Amino acid sequence: MANADGMNYAPRGKVDPVVKKGEFRFSAAGLDHGHIFGMTQGLLDAGGELVSVYDPDPAKVATFREKFPQVREASSLEELLEDNSTHMVLSAAITSDRGPIGLKVLDAGKHYMSDKAPFTTFEQLEAAREKVSRTGLRWAVCYSERVQNEAAVHAGELIHAGEIGRVIQVIGLGPHRLNAPNRPKWFFEKARYGGILTDIGSHQIEQFLYYSGANSADVLHSKVGNYSHPQYPEFEDFGDATLLADNGATNYFRVDWFTPDGLGTWGDGRTVVLGTEGYIELRKYVDVARDAEGDHVYLVNADGEHHIPVHGKIGFPYFGELILDCLNGTDKAMPQEHTFRAAELCLRCQADARVVSPRSVQ
Amino acid sequence: MANADGMNYAPRGKVDPVVKKGEFRFSAAGLDHGHIFGMTQGLLDAGGELVSVYDPDPAKVATFREKFPQVREASSLEELLEDNSTHMVLSAAITSDRGPIGLKVLDAGKHYMSDKAPFTTFEQLEAAREKVSRTGLRWAVCYSERVQNEAAVHAGELIHAGEIGRVIQVIGLGPHRLNAPNRPKWFFEKARYGGILTDIGSHQIEQFLYYSGANSADVLHSKVGNYSHPQYPEFEDFGDATLLADNGATNYFRVDWFTPDGLGTWGDGRTVVLGTEGYIELRKYVDVARDAEGDHVYLVNADGEHHIPVHGKIGFPYFGELILDCLNGTDKAMPQEHTFRAAELCLRCQADARVVSPRSVQ
Repeated sequence: MANADGMNYAPRGKVDPVVKKGEFRFSAAGLDHGHIFGMTQGLLDAGGELVSVYDPDPAKVATFREKFPQVREASSLEELLEDNSTHMVLSAAITSDRGPIGLKVLDAGKHYMSDKAPFTTFEQLEAAREKVSRTGLRWAVCYSERVQNEAAVHAGELIHAGEIGRVIQVIGLGPHRLNAPNRPKWFFEKARYGGILTDIGSHQIEQFLYYSGANSADVLHSKVGNYSHPQYPEFEDFGDATLLADNGATNYFRVDWFTPDGLGTWGDGRTVVLGTEGYIELRKYVDVARDAEGDHVYLVNADGEHHIPVHGKIGFPYFGELILDCLNGTDKAMPQEHTFRAAELCLRCQADARVVSPRSVQ
Repeated sequence: MANADGMNYAPRGKVDPVVKKGEFRFSAAGLDHGHIFGMTQGLLDAGGELVSVYDPDPAKVATFREKFPQVREASSLEELLEDNSTHMVLSAAITSDRGPIGLKVLDAGKHYMSDKAPFTTFEQLEAAREKVSRTGLRWAVCYSERVQNEAAVHAGELIHAGEIGRVIQVIGLGPHRLNAPNRPKWFFEKARYGGILTDIGSHQIEQFLYYSGANSADVLHSKVGNYSHPQYPEFEDFGDATLLADNGATNYFRVDWFTPDGLGTWGDGRTVVLGTEGYIELRKYVDVARDAEGDHVYLVNADGEHHIPVHGKIGFPYFGELILDCLNGTDKAMPQEHTFRAAELCLRCQADARVVSPRSVQ
């Protein structure tokens, strides 16, 4: 199954260049998570030019070069950073390394795009905020479950057009397939992956802030647990949280690693946005037992019940907008403060989480 | 639309008598909520015999007699209770009156079936517990969103057969259509309807305890709000809660009164039960934009993705089991302690609820 565990989730958007060849050049450093493929492809489709790649593991570099044969291999991170022709560096390093790498990238005068989650500690986040403030460079985070899902993108368009009135609540379900034998050792080490709410929870909070139009939120409750994987004592296979935004909207999300073997893709991700005049349900990666293809929007409003399949119709405007933000000094793709706030709130959910009692269910 | 607001939700199960005519006789007292029709029909289909009806409002009695012309009109609650031939009295009185009526019913030596929610205060619940303990009679509560929904009944069968492994979490979404002009005055008075988590939240907690096999739970967080109905200051149009059961399973539910006008039925009720080996999603009253008929079970397990439409195939075994429990002294339809525990936890959710800030979104 090509899309068995989401580890290499790299959907294709439309090819829609916003710049001419050579106007936006980028490199990739840190290939620990397969998200690097989707991040790279997204920038390429928007007209970016891939220059070089670095990772301490030659096998990861070889895999990357198979997919992107035009790339040059740098012999060190320093060499990659010294290339004055590039505008941006991408990284999908081990989660706890993404913050420190970003500091080096901005110090080298380049913009940065990190895989999510961007940080595992509040200290990393504060250092990033300070570096951005000092340099004026961008610290982007590829929250792929929104910016690389066409249903999620279209939902934003519908909501911003007022289709469901004012947003009251966002619910997100983010189940993922574990596929433990395919996962690296760091994936199960809490100091390195950051905990389930920091890791896959980060998508959820970003979506909440985006769909509700909130600037910030309080975490009202969160919990984590390891229900079924005692062989990985630092792993969390379940987490959830509820938040209250500064504009009164609320959020609930659940993330877990319990996608059953029989599901045709890596996770039956859903988002339900409740508004005063209607609601939207996204079936993001599959319409279970109905359609193996993803990107389904279900909209119910005053007019009726609507099924809007958008696969291949919307694209991923995020990447082109990000390139233009970097070149023009604008803040349209995903505002910098929003990017950091989502990261901050997932760290807060994780730090405050009640550990539910797995012992009682084993 | 026949089923516009759920106020008169009274689905038909199968006619499947468990007793002969006259073996189980019952009356109805308190017709304030249309659920009385479904409760009455459920017992009739299971072989019960409807004897008499009482309500202080002659118009409500007339409507009831139109639907059930065989019924005799009692001139007072006392007269109805003095009929020594009946085994049970049903009530869908105003929520805050259901407890006090039940005490009189048990004092008269009869079993009682209350519409949900059964109580609006902890004092009413304690009085009921004590009365049941003293008399040995049953105090049933018709939690219709499980016992009168074939998808919900079938989900219980699948879970108890081990189809999804051990239950980790139950999520319930209980949106309802308000249809304010059709609602009585008491519906907006908090002391009488009890608050949203007590009222429509009660279904959700009953389902959680049932599907997870838990005996009890702690409320970890709950909230209520009035986002869009300032003309009804005591009304709550939104509520949610998360619970942790004694067996380690957790629960999240949201209830609201925001069903959009364009939905083909009164609410797009969903239940998602996550297990260690699979999950079940129920689309209880509609499969939105797909099928106007309800009772859809979606099951994903190791074998694959399954859509199991069960409308008309399962029936409502609850009513027959309840009749036999009353006649035989068994406790099968819904254990008495489970019935009360669900009521207790919804009162706890309501009492502990954080009031979210509707002012900021109006």
